[in-house]
Amino acid sequence: MNEGGLTCDAFLGGRVHAWQPARGYRAGTDPVFLAAACPARAGQSVLELGCGVGVASLCLRARVPDVRIMGVERQAAYADLARRNGLDVTLADLAALPAALRARSFDHVIANPPYFATGDGTAARDDGREAALREATPLSVWIGAARARLRPKGWLTMIQSADRLPDCLAALAGGFGAISILPLQSRMGRPARRILLRARKGGKAPFTLLAPLVLHAGVRHEKDGDDFAPVAASVLRDGAPIDWG
Amino acid sequence: MNEGGLTCDAFLGGRVHAWQPARGYRAGTDPVFLAAACPARAGQSVLELGCGVGVASLCLRARVPDVRIMGVERQAAYADLARRNGLDVTLADLAALPAALRARSFDHVIANPPYFATGDGTAARDDGREAALREATPLSVWIGAARARLRPKGWLTMIQSADRLPDCLAALAGGFGAISILPLQSRMGRPARRILLRARKGGKAPFTLLAPLVLHAGVRHEKDGDDFAPVAASVLRDGAPIDWG
Repeated sequence: MNEGGLTCDAFLGGRVHAWQPARGYRAGTDPVFLAAACPARAGQSVLELGCGVGVASLCLRARVPDVRIMGVERQAAYADLARRNGLDVTLADLAALPAALRARSFDHVIANPPYFATGDGTAARDDGREAALREATPLSVWIGAARARLRPKGWLTMIQSADRLPDCLAALAGGFGAISILPLQSRMGRPARRILLRARKGGKAPFTLLAPLVLHAGVRHEKDGDDFAPVAASVLRDGAPIDWG
Repeated sequence: MNEGGLTCDAFLGGRVHAWQPARGYRAGTDPVFLAAACPARAGQSVLELGCGVGVASLCLRARVPDVRIMGVERQAAYADLARRNGLDVTLADLAALPAALRARSFDHVIANPPYFATGDGTAARDDGREAALREATPLSVWIGAARARLRPKGWLTMIQSADRLPDCLAALAGGFGAISILPLQSRMGRPARRILLRARKGGKAPFTLLAPLVLHAGVRHEKDGDDFAPVAASVLRDGAPIDWG
């Protein structure tokens, strides 16, 4: 669907639809993996930091019954779309959350922060896309905001560019444990492009580096269309949760 | 071979032999992977920190012609065996290297530091094994000593327990870049047990998380004896180098 610079796109094999800008930052598979990686159970509360138009939260709500999700987004146009998509969203900078939100704590925090550190790479042409891709707020502030809003033993789940793993771990050193990393590789034998990360506030369990999830079958692109490997397809099309082992 | 509490063991399909204590810390596959991971070329200089009886250095010398290797070991019994095995070894604590060694710099540093942080787990029954497995010297001091002894743009190569990855990255944040992690998994789908790590002093390239090297074929142990997957077998038996991509 298409309407005044917006498209309405399907996720999880059509179980989720979301309005998003036709140009600018557009949700792909990353927020779907983020939702799949969040171990929320029925009745629990979830805060999504930097929710954009809300695809991760919508996918999570499609999988977990009675989950209570709140989003925070600092770009008004994206926050408005997230509301149109049916989410409860606070327009705010995560570095300066309103008092009402600072008074609450959550069972889970999920986030898909910008992948490029300040000053890295070339600016995107679209301001909204630029703001979604390049951090204005350092990753350590995202992780600090997550820690502050989690209840004790609550879980943070994130997706990030694999090259930011050292930055993620440095920020998590303050107050998180039971950290697991699930690398996402596009194909067998390739370096990880993304990492899914799970960490527990006040957790004590050792760090774990899991076997990668390989997105595409075969060693190269063989045919038209996608060629997702079975586990990736079950996440992206059927809404299956990620198995953290 | 067997002699007064010592055994003489074969590595790299018999191309390397090393005397080591029959009881205590005994070299397995880890130092062989460490040697395979070091990108030293002919004529370059290598320092091995905590060389034990010297298996990693011996394997590296078997692969790379004219490589000049020096070992440092703080346990006299292991340093003596390393010399018997044909290595040039300084008996010293890496946290307090003698002035003659502090005056030198190397193209490469390799290390297989103890896997257990101080206070973790149960003590080994053998003092030598205990000293080899549990750190008396924090990992950050090992990495600091490596940095101090490397020439600019020199490479550090390490093998470590996968659960120490956050500690490794925290220590590398001071002065290293171009960090690559190669996870070693025992089998497909299992979490990484070890990591091979390569980092460049003063390097600027981004962090890379490589696809894991899977040691054993199949999803479980199927038959007697080893069942190394082809890449692992080529490293362990043929002395092939690790491909860092």
